[in-house]
Amino acid sequence: MTQTQARSRTFSWSDPGLNAAAVGRRSGLELLRAMIAGELAAPPVMHLIDMTRMEADEGRVAVELVPQEFHYNPLGTVHGGVISTLLDTAAACAVHTTLPAGVGYTSLDLNVKFLRPVTVDSGVLRCEGTVLQRGRRTALAEAKLVDARSRLVAHATSTCFLLPLDSPTP
Amino acid sequence: MTQTQARSRTFSWSDPGLNAAAVGRRSGLELLRAMIAGELAAPPVMHLIDMTRMEADEGRVAVELVPQEFHYNPLGTVHGGVISTLLDTAAACAVHTTLPAGVGYTSLDLNVKFLRPVTVDSGVLRCEGTVLQRGRRTALAEAKLVDARSRLVAHATSTCFLLPLDSPTP
Amino acid sequence: MTQTQARSRTFSWSDPGLNAAAVGRRSGLELLRAMIAGELAAPPVMHLIDMTRMEADEGRVAVELVPQEFHYNPLGTVHGGVISTLLDTAAACAVHTTLPAGVGYTSLDLNVKFLRPVTVDSGVLRCEGTVLQRGRRTALAEAKLVDARSRLVAHATSTCFLLPLDSPTP
Amino acid sequence: MTQTQARSRTFSWSDPGLNAAAVGRRSGLELLRAMIAGELAAPPVMHLIDMTRMEADEGRVAVELVPQEFHYNPLGTVHGGVISTLLDTAAACAVHTTLPAGVGYTSLDLNVKFLRPVTVDSGVLRCEGTVLQRGRRTALAEAKLVDARSRLVAHATSTCFLLPLDSPTP
Repeated sequence: MTQTQARSRTFSWSDPGLNAAAVGRRSGLELLRAMIAGELAAPPVMHLIDMTRMEADEGRVAVELVPQEFHYNPLGTVHGGVISTLLDTAAACAVHTTLPAGVGYTSLDLNVKFLRPVTVDSGVLRCEGTVLQRGRRTALAEAKLVDARSRLVAHATSTCFLLPLDSPTP
Repeated sequence: MTQTQARSRTFSWSDPGLNAAAVGRRSGLELLRAMIAGELAAPPVMHLIDMTRMEADEGRVAVELVPQEFHYNPLGTVHGGVISTLLDTAAACAVHTTLPAGVGYTSLDLNVKFLRPVTVDSGVLRCEGTVLQRGRRTALAEAKLVDARSRLVAHATSTCFLLPLDSPTP
Repeated sequence: MTQTQARSRTFSWSDPGLNAAAVGRRSGLELLRAMIAGELAAPPVMHLIDMTRMEADEGRVAVELVPQEFHYNPLGTVHGGVISTLLDTAAACAVHTTLPAGVGYTSLDLNVKFLRPVTVDSGVLRCEGTVLQRGRRTALAEAKLVDARSRLVAHATSTCFLLPLDSPTP
Repeated sequence: MTQTQARSRTFSWSDPGLNAAAVGRRSGLELLRAMIAGELAAPPVMHLIDMTRMEADEGRVAVELVPQEFHYNPLGTVHGGVISTLLDTAAACAVHTTLPAGVGYTSLDLNVKFLRPVTVDSGVLRCEGTVLQRGRRTALAEAKLVDARSRLVAHATSTCFLLPLDSPTP
């Protein structure tokens, strides 16, 4: 009726504790593929941000996002935090694909470069994470975010710390 | 009924275009304070992430977040992207408080360090952004995120590019 | 005579002001190639660090270094600052190769990841910088440092700010 | 005679292996103070860059540098790598001051922001490193570089990885 009328959105997710139990019993690539196949629930943050269409291969993960108004900052563009969420997800999951069962990881950092403003007119965003180096204790990944015209709109690097998981108890 | 039953959340926001029009006609500090006072709508991303209680002074902005399950990653902790959103918001808004009417900004980067895992048990998170240096063309800010026990859980620096806004047309 | 006997090294350089005058009158690629060909003097820092064998193409620069004892930190490895100098040089010069006459640049940041310790046993280090994105006001480059066995030992990204140079006066 | 006449500099250093043997047998603060007192030789890189006047306290290290022509890049300012060397040194040594005997460290990254050009006219540069967070496996430090007029000219953060040293054998 008026321009100030509120918009709203409802999203759902599943108990993240169910998946957490699976971490460590399968390799990272197996876990991510089970999630992509719908055998394991996607983590809540993917529903929060509305990420879609994940793909996972050894050392490489891609994920997509359709920019929407609820992603916006006060400047009328997609908030840098939403862009960072995509980059962090792609980079960390790429590292995860290289880990055998029993090895976990945690992100130590995320270095994001914002290269172009992103709006609903940017079209489907595609974010691809790639492992640049995999050591014994740390792994370095980079992530590239491109818009529907394949222009690079953001870039990140991330270092993950690798650690043995406690022996899993079913 | 079962453990896999979905949780859901509904959030609302207002047309971000209404605020975008106000940017540039007032100083950054005036704009943020109008938003805090409820005279201007908060940007959609604040409702998406559920940020609350912003405070703004010259060169300094604080914002809070109660960690919730919908912020979680597959590891059962708050996703690094949510943490990055808080840090980016506090750093960029701190820069904004130093800008007169007619000057805008855009974030060039965000360098995040994740120091501790964050869960719903971390209590209310408080994120404070501070301007470290304000040049003619760029400004550098840092942001610190602490948990309810005042432990530093994440840190970021961000460089913003400052630019004159086109003369505002009402 | 004793183990504590001092080692010493002498290096020379040319007046950097002579080159500074040339900057802006030629394209970046022309300038770098004139330097490689010996028509222009190399900057003092290259002699300080003992960098050698620069190559330059459009959007890409490589430079080499033989690790030596005088590069060492207290831990008995090449200091991170020396590694950063190589990465910064390769990244910034790669950006420079994309600039026409009359356009200058300045580095806004340098995000370095140290992946492996480097010693005199690492052999000749090769550092390659590549432009990832070239905008109107900024450019993003990455640099990779590999050892003689082609293992990635360090990585960096760097954002450069591009600016018109004052009209050159001979 | 001609403008292109070479300038030269000679510097000396001591066998870094002598100090490397001491690392791990004393706390970090004891080692740095022994170096400052001249009981242990300064590492070669300090002579290379010509750093001076280190101070060390628990969680804090400062070091100074007089900018000189041999630090210059092709743009006629102190090279970013020299600035990075100061910042890396101050940040890493600040972390070192918090480590007991038997614990070593290695720098995982260095995130530098260049805020102002530095020249011989900047006067004595002072670089101060401070520990922001000290965990069990990692520590985060920041470093600030100011010129003789106390203006912030560069800033960095650095994450160090902490690791037990092999039991020292004299």
